[in-house]
Amino acid sequence: MQMGQWLQRVREERPLVHNITNLVVTNVAANTLLSLGASPVMAHAHEEVADMVAIARALALNLGTLDPYTVTSMDLASEAANRRGVPIVLDPVGAGATPYRTQAAMRLLEARSIQVLRGNQGEIGVITGAGGEVAGVDAKAAGAGLVDAMMRFARDHGLIVAATGERDLVTDGEVVYELENGHPWEAAITGSGCSLTAVIGAFVAVSDGTKGGLLEATVAAITCFNVAAEMAAEGASGPGSFQVRLLDALYAVTPGDVDARARIWRG
Amino acid sequence: MQMGQWLQRVREERPLVHNITNLVVTNVAANTLLSLGASPVMAHAHEEVADMVAIARALALNLGTLDPYTVTSMDLASEAANRRGVPIVLDPVGAGATPYRTQAAMRLLEARSIQVLRGNQGEIGVITGAGGEVAGVDAKAAGAGLVDAMMRFARDHGLIVAATGERDLVTDGEVVYELENGHPWEAAITGSGCSLTAVIGAFVAVSDGTKGGLLEATVAAITCFNVAAEMAAEGASGPGSFQVRLLDALYAVTPGDVDARARIWRG
Amino acid sequence: MQMGQWLQRVREERPLVHNITNLVVTNVAANTLLSLGASPVMAHAHEEVADMVAIARALALNLGTLDPYTVTSMDLASEAANRRGVPIVLDPVGAGATPYRTQAAMRLLEARSIQVLRGNQGEIGVITGAGGEVAGVDAKAAGAGLVDAMMRFARDHGLIVAATGERDLVTDGEVVYELENGHPWEAAITGSGCSLTAVIGAFVAVSDGTKGGLLEATVAAITCFNVAAEMAAEGASGPGSFQVRLLDALYAVTPGDVDARARIWRG
Repeated sequence: MQMGQWLQRVREERPLVHNITNLVVTNVAANTLLSLGASPVMAHAHEEVADMVAIARALALNLGTLDPYTVTSMDLASEAANRRGVPIVLDPVGAGATPYRTQAAMRLLEARSIQVLRGNQGEIGVITGAGGEVAGVDAKAAGAGLVDAMMRFARDHGLIVAATGERDLVTDGEVVYELENGHPWEAAITGSGCSLTAVIGAFVAVSDGTKGGLLEATVAAITCFNVAAEMAAEGASGPGSFQVRLLDALYAVTPGDVDARARIWRG
Repeated sequence: MQMGQWLQRVREERPLVHNITNLVVTNVAANTLLSLGASPVMAHAHEEVADMVAIARALALNLGTLDPYTVTSMDLASEAANRRGVPIVLDPVGAGATPYRTQAAMRLLEARSIQVLRGNQGEIGVITGAGGEVAGVDAKAAGAGLVDAMMRFARDHGLIVAATGERDLVTDGEVVYELENGHPWEAAITGSGCSLTAVIGAFVAVSDGTKGGLLEATVAAITCFNVAAEMAAEGASGPGSFQVRLLDALYAVTPGDVDARARIWRG
Repeated sequence: MQMGQWLQRVREERPLVHNITNLVVTNVAANTLLSLGASPVMAHAHEEVADMVAIARALALNLGTLDPYTVTSMDLASEAANRRGVPIVLDPVGAGATPYRTQAAMRLLEARSIQVLRGNQGEIGVITGAGGEVAGVDAKAAGAGLVDAMMRFARDHGLIVAATGERDLVTDGEVVYELENGHPWEAAITGSGCSLTAVIGAFVAVSDGTKGGLLEATVAAITCFNVAAEMAAEGASGPGSFQVRLLDALYAVTPGDVDARARIWRG
């Protein structure tokens, strides 16, 4: 797989990604998409989410600070997205921490056709039935058998499952990719996972929508983001400067950088 | 016009600007006002918006992530502002992207006395009837005849209209100013337009409230913000560091810097 | 008091702090806790706040952009926290600016057992009956007799009261500490007070819950935060870079730095 060409395609097409996300990361997710070269829009009013989906090329849903109003926003937006063939990326932030979040994630996965599910290994463990412990919104430990559970879940629901962590796992139910790029400081800032979800939205937006295309787009999105994180960490003095440099790196990273640094293993 | 003295007046009087703004930019708008030397407050509860307007010197309304609750907040706050003579700056983020946003903007413009309308050229084209295309919250292209439409709209509604972009246009319906300061990276970060709207709030707060005063305050606000952006861009490595340096520059920029760098043309 | 050991304990135990906070500071409060070594979670849905409190070790409530939904969130969360013995830190942002905020703060203080009340001197003056003027969310002037009023209020309500400003005052009703660390730029960025409230949550989370423990934890939290602010200000060029460096400093500050720099006076 040539990952760099995916980044180039995102920058050429500048897809509009409609985000319904949490209150913590709205700003950083929007800036991440802008820095990378995509176009973000945030909208949650029941009156307009379907209209916004209609002009967007991907829908990114994030359960981070869910409430009943936003649950309905996501329901309406995902219904419109399915009707129009707009791909959906779902980030089940905090699934497993409270029943409310777990159930909201499961309901969306049952009621709608979701194209990519991305969470940390704890959240994905809970959703796929592999177990794992989630304290708040941080993953504690992925349960044993995570890969098997992810593959089964991906097949059963016909989607791509990505569990990010020190190593990132991505599967379509048949093939598993293991991704080694990234930097520990990603876990020291809030919203890096949520921003990555938005980035996956930008990449699947420029894919052909096939299972193979969605899988490759997801692998490419995670790799590009994590390569930028590695570049950002060089010269950073802590989480604050890392975060600033991450936006600079997302803006500066070239397809060549991505291809040169990519560490992807096919299982 | 001496623009620098407007900045000095803002810093001396430190006006309180009441913002009802979108979820993406609350933090950056507040920090922008603080860095410049004004005082921000954010409040949207129906129970308190009128009380907050009563102690504020300007009200900045931003339609970025509108929902029915916030629509009512803006309705109540603008009613109180009109009653008390507190100037209102309206930012119709995403007008034209969905009917909900366009209609919310139009309703406020019809029902209330708004002093300044500021948007990007796409949004202002939609509102003033000049046409133009809005994809999400980015302007695509200003329609032909934008200046004419802006002047007519300004006269009909008795307000100042500002359409920002590579060149910024400001009119009271009689005179048109064309402003050339600024930097392309302003479009690479989220919230620069929204922050500018809040800054206009701070400048009109220290004006005499006449049509001429509001016009000059708006021109001064845009010029000061864009001069700071130029200073911030020098030495920035990308959108992340630009954003940080912009807050530093808003804090450091002097009236003399503004007067030395201002590029304002009266049409 | 050895302040540095408190910081070490926070980093070792990495307590989960549940925040119900305002829209301006959600991101910066979460990043502050992460940088320091604690674990943040934000959740406000009525359906889950009690469940989230059940896995948290402290609850931080912030009235900054209050609305009726959030008032109920805080009511439910604080009820659960009292039932489970989870300590609560309350930040009455803007108390005195509008009746709505003042009353919301007073209702929480009457209905629940709050462990620490932290605000700026204007807000604390209003709440404790010492007077003082609050314009928006900035303190204008602490009323005379602030210390006496704080002590009386602390005794009457059985809590720790902290009024931060150029000098910070902390009392349990018997002893008063006066803290001199910090930097004027803390007032030039939004959310420094709100972030400090979240940090107090992390410190009381690792205390023994006694009056003496809560008092010392509060003094330690303010001192650690303000020492980091001093370190951040060295080499900063303005509020933007100060904010970035503050997160770096919260990550880098050692117990030894805190003990070497602490300027604490017992009154």
